[in-house]
Amino acid sequence: MTNMTNTASHAWAALTAHSQTLAKKHLRDLFADDPGRASSLSLSFEDILYDFSKQRLDRETLELLVRLAEASAVPELIRRMFDGERINVTEGRSVLHVALRRSTAPFPSARMDVMPEVLVTRGRMAEFADLLRSGRCQGHQGTAIRDVVNIGIGGSDLGPKMVNQALRSLAHPALGVHYVSNLDGAQLAPLLQTLDPRSTLFIVVSKTFTTQETMLNAETARRWLEANLGDGIDLSRHFAAVSSKPERAVAFGVGAERVFPIWDWVGGRYSLWSAVGLSLMIAIGPHAFDELLHGAERMDEHFRTAPLARNLPAVMGLIGVWNTNFLGAATSAVLPYNESLKYLPSFLQQLEMESNGKSVGVSGDPVGGETCPIVWGELGNNGQHAFFQLLHQGGRLVPCDFIASVRSDYPLPGHQEALLSNCFAQSSALAFGKTEDEARQGMEKERLPAEQIAALLPHRVFAGNQPSSTLLLKSLAPATLGALVALYEHKVLVQGAIWGVNSFDQWGVELGKAVASRILPAFAEPSLAAAFDSSTQALLAYCRQSS
Amino acid sequence: MTNMTNTASHAWAALTAHSQTLAKKHLRDLFADDPGRASSLSLSFEDILYDFSKQRLDRETLELLVRLAEASAVPELIRRMFDGERINVTEGRSVLHVALRRSTAPFPSARMDVMPEVLVTRGRMAEFADLLRSGRCQGHQGTAIRDVVNIGIGGSDLGPKMVNQALRSLAHPALGVHYVSNLDGAQLAPLLQTLDPRSTLFIVVSKTFTTQETMLNAETARRWLEANLGDGIDLSRHFAAVSSKPERAVAFGVGAERVFPIWDWVGGRYSLWSAVGLSLMIAIGPHAFDELLHGAERMDEHFRTAPLARNLPAVMGLIGVWNTNFLGAATSAVLPYNESLKYLPSFLQQLEMESNGKSVGVSGDPVGGETCPIVWGELGNNGQHAFFQLLHQGGRLVPCDFIASVRSDYPLPGHQEALLSNCFAQSSALAFGKTEDEARQGMEKERLPAEQIAALLPHRVFAGNQPSSTLLLKSLAPATLGALVALYEHKVLVQGAIWGVNSFDQWGVELGKAVASRILPAFAEPSLAAAFDSSTQALLAYCRQSS
Repeated sequence: MTNMTNTASHAWAALTAHSQTLAKKHLRDLFADDPGRASSLSLSFEDILYDFSKQRLDRETLELLVRLAEASAVPELIRRMFDGERINVTEGRSVLHVALRRSTAPFPSARMDVMPEVLVTRGRMAEFADLLRSGRCQGHQGTAIRDVVNIGIGGSDLGPKMVNQALRSLAHPALGVHYVSNLDGAQLAPLLQTLDPRSTLFIVVSKTFTTQETMLNAETARRWLEANLGDGIDLSRHFAAVSSKPERAVAFGVGAERVFPIWDWVGGRYSLWSAVGLSLMIAIGPHAFDELLHGAERMDEHFRTAPLARNLPAVMGLIGVWNTNFLGAATSAVLPYNESLKYLPSFLQQLEMESNGKSVGVSGDPVGGETCPIVWGELGNNGQHAFFQLLHQGGRLVPCDFIASVRSDYPLPGHQEALLSNCFAQSSALAFGKTEDEARQGMEKERLPAEQIAALLPHRVFAGNQPSSTLLLKSLAPATLGALVALYEHKVLVQGAIWGVNSFDQWGVELGKAVASRILPAFAEPSLAAAFDSSTQALLAYCRQSS
Repeated sequence: MTNMTNTASHAWAALTAHSQTLAKKHLRDLFADDPGRASSLSLSFEDILYDFSKQRLDRETLELLVRLAEASAVPELIRRMFDGERINVTEGRSVLHVALRRSTAPFPSARMDVMPEVLVTRGRMAEFADLLRSGRCQGHQGTAIRDVVNIGIGGSDLGPKMVNQALRSLAHPALGVHYVSNLDGAQLAPLLQTLDPRSTLFIVVSKTFTTQETMLNAETARRWLEANLGDGIDLSRHFAAVSSKPERAVAFGVGAERVFPIWDWVGGRYSLWSAVGLSLMIAIGPHAFDELLHGAERMDEHFRTAPLARNLPAVMGLIGVWNTNFLGAATSAVLPYNESLKYLPSFLQQLEMESNGKSVGVSGDPVGGETCPIVWGELGNNGQHAFFQLLHQGGRLVPCDFIASVRSDYPLPGHQEALLSNCFAQSSALAFGKTEDEARQGMEKERLPAEQIAALLPHRVFAGNQPSSTLLLKSLAPATLGALVALYEHKVLVQGAIWGVNSFDQWGVELGKAVASRILPAFAEPSLAAAFDSSTQALLAYCRQSS
C-alpha cells in the first residue's frame, strides 16, 4: 500500500497544480462554463442519485483523482478486502463485513469460507426475532416479552439504533425496542422506571463481554430484575447476548442458546449487519432486515466491479480527499433532510472518524498530511435555524452532504415538498451566494433608504462557493438505506487507502480506558489521587467536597 | 468597537509572538514547570468549577489575552449591553435577554424600563403553567390537558428542549411535554399518533408568526384537531402562542389571553428565559423556572462586575480566541458527561455559530481573520467509543469542553464514579498522551514479542497536547444550569467583541429562505424549474420521476 507521505507522486503534484488553477473559479463560473455539468457530475445507483456537481471541481479534477486512486492502489485494496486478505494489518485480521450481507457461499473463498457460520447465525437471529414478534417469547411466569433493551456502546449501539430510527415506520407495533449505551445512570434509570421487569428482555452486546459501560449497565439491569422479580428468578428468560466470548455471556447468566456470535473479522462500526443488529431485526422483522442486507450487497457488488470513475463509493471518497487535502477543509457536515435519519450524523461520525482519524500510516510512518476531517451535522431543516449562518457567511470552507428522500414515510399535506425545496435551496444558496449587486437590488426593491442600504449591504452579501453533494433517495426503503450505509462504509476504505492508514483498527481508544481504570479507585481512596497531575487531583478534590 | 482587522494592534502582536514561544512547550512541560498550575488556571463561581489548566497556555497568555480584551473594548461592550444601548447595530436593537432573568426594576434604566412587561409576562406564564400542572386546564368537552406540544424551530425549540431534558428529573409526572420543529412530517405525524386530541395543547412559538416550518406544523395540528374533534370545536382550548405579532396568533385561532409576548430586544437563541420557555415552565413548574433565572442572573452580575482576569465568561471567551486565532483550531468540541445534557451540543452550536459565524465586522469591513469555529460534540462517554480515536491520534487540534456534574439526578450504584473517572481520564489522556517509551514499556509488560512491539509501537503512541477545559458542576440544579447557559451566552459576546462582529443579528439565514420560496412552486409546476441552475433542475426532475 502506498503511504500518503508519497505526496511527491505525479498524481498528487498534478492535483496540487490543478487546484491552484481551479481556485480562481467560483461555482458560479463552473456552472456557467458547462451547461451539462449537473449530468456529467452526478451518478446514480438503483434508487440513489448522487449529485456532486456543486463540489468545487470539474471533469479534469475527477480524472486526476482517479489517477491518484490508482496510484494509491485503491483497486488493489478493494480486491484484497473481498479476497479475505488480512488488510487490518495491525491486528492481523481480515475485513469481511461484506460477508454479512451475502446470500451465497463460499465467501471469500472455498479455502476460507465464513458463510456457513454467517448463514446459521442469521437463521438463529430470525428464529429468535420471530419468537419475540409473535409474542411467544416468555419472561417471568410466562409473561410475553414486550420490551427489548439493547445494551451496548459505540458500534454495538449506533448502527442498530440509527437504522431502527430510519425504518421505524416498519417497526412492530407491540414491541418497544430501546437503546442504552451511556455509563451515566441518567440513561438507564429513567428507562427502567417505564418498563415492566416481567416483560423486558435485555440484549447485552459486547465483543469481549468486558466493555466497562456495557457490563455495568448489564449488571444494573440484572439487579433490577432480581430486586423486582425475586432472587430465585430464571434470569436467562430476560437476557440475550452478542459476543465473541460466549463463555463469558453464559457465566453472566445468559442461556447458551441465546448467545449470538460475532467474529474478529467484523469491526464494531461495521457490525450492524451481524448479530449486533439483533435488536433491529426484532423491531423491523427478518424480512425487512434481509432487504437491508440485499441493498448493501448490491452496493458491495457495484463497489467491487464498477470502474473508479463511475464507482459511487470511490468518487465520494475521492471528493472527500479533494476537499481535505487540496482545498483544505477541516470538517465535513452531514445534513439529513429526513427526521428518520436523525442519528445518521452520529453514526457517520464514528464510521469515518474512528476509521480514518489517524496520523500514522500502515507502514508505521507518519502520513505527513491531513486525514479524516471532523464529521458533524444535524437534521438539515433544524440546522437552517441554528448553525447555517456560519455555513453561509462564516468564511469557513465546510463541504456538506445533503441527504433527502423524495417520498416520505409519514406524508402530511404540504410538508414533503416544502422540506425538499429547503434542501435544494440551501445547497444552491451555499454554492451560488448573493453578489453585492443582487443584495443592493433586493434592498432597493424593499425600498430601504439609501443610507440603510449602504450600511446593510456588506451584511447581506453571500460569498457562496461553499461546496456540497446531494444524495437523493427515492425513499427510505430498507434496501436503499442498506445501499446508503454501505456506500459510506466503502467511501471510508477508499480514503483510508489514499491516506495510507489502516481504517480497521482503533488503537486510539486504549489510553483513555487505561487511565480511567487508574483514576476510579481514587474516588474511594483519596490518597491515591496524589499519583495524578495537578488538574486531575483538583477535579477529584472538588468531587469529594461536593458529594 | 474595534474591528479584528486591527490585528496589527500591540496586544495582537504580543500574543502572536508569545504563541510562537509557547508552541515549543508540550502540556507535559507546562504542568511540570508549574506545580500550582491547576489552581492558578482555574476559576470557580458558586457551584461551578472551571478548570482550564489543560489548555495550551500559561499565566502570561492570560495576561496578554486580557490586554487584548481591553484593547477590543470588551468591558465597554458589556457595559453598553447592560445599559440597554443598541449594540445590535445592523438591526438597531438593544440586547436585553439579561432583563429576562432579573427580579428588580427599573432595568436597564428608569427612562427605558422593560421590567414591568417582563414581570407581568412572567406572572401570566406562571398562572398558565399552574393551571396546566393542576389539571384545571381543559380541552375539548372538559377533558384535562395532559400533553403539551411546543411547535417552534431554532431558538424557539433548542433552548426549552435542552433545558427540559436537563431538568427532566423535576418534570411533572402527569404531563407530557413534546417538541416539534422539523418541516418533515416524519416528526409531527408519528407524535400525533400517540396523542389524544381532546387532551392536547399546542404552543406555537414564532416571533413573526410567519416561520414556514412552524406555521405548517401548526396548520397540520389544527387540521388534526378538527378532523378528530369535529369542525365546530373551540380551537382556542388547544392552542397557546408566543409571538411579537399577537394579532397574527389571534387570527390563527389562539385566544388573546393565551398569546404571550416576545420583544425585539431578545434574539431567538437567547430567548429560553422568556415566554419561549413556556413549555419548559409547564414541565418543571414556575418555582424551578425561577431558580433557573436566578442562577443566570447571578452569572450576569458576575459578568458585569468581575475583573476580566477572574471573569468566567471573559476567560472562556478569550481561551476560545486563543485556540482559534493563535493556535489555529478550526473546531471546538462540547462533550457532556451527563445524559441529561444531551442536547447541549446542539444548543451551543446554534448559540455560538449563529452569533459569531460571520466574516464581516460591525463596521461593514471584512474581519480579516478567523471567527467562530465549528462547534460540535456528543455525550462524552458515547463519543469515547465513536470519534475519540480522532481526538487522540488524528493529528488535528480540537479544543474540548468537558462538562460533568458531581452528583447524579439518577444515582445507580457504581455508575457515577465510573462516569467521572472516564471524564477526567479522557482530558488527561488527551493532554499528556503516551510517549514512545511508555508505549514500549506497556507492551513489554504485556510480554509481546519484540517484532510485534516494533510493528505496533507507532500505532500505540499518543502525541497528547490536545487542549481542553473541564466544567465541573456540583449538580444539575436549575440555578447551576442557568448559570452555565448564561456563561456560554456571555462568552459569545466577549468573542464577538474581539472578532469585531455583531453577535446578535443573523443575516445569513435570509438567502436560503428566499431561494426555497422560489423553488417550492416548481414542484407543482415543472416548467418553472427552467429558471434554476442545472443541478436544481436535475434534482427536481428526479423528484418528479420518483414520486
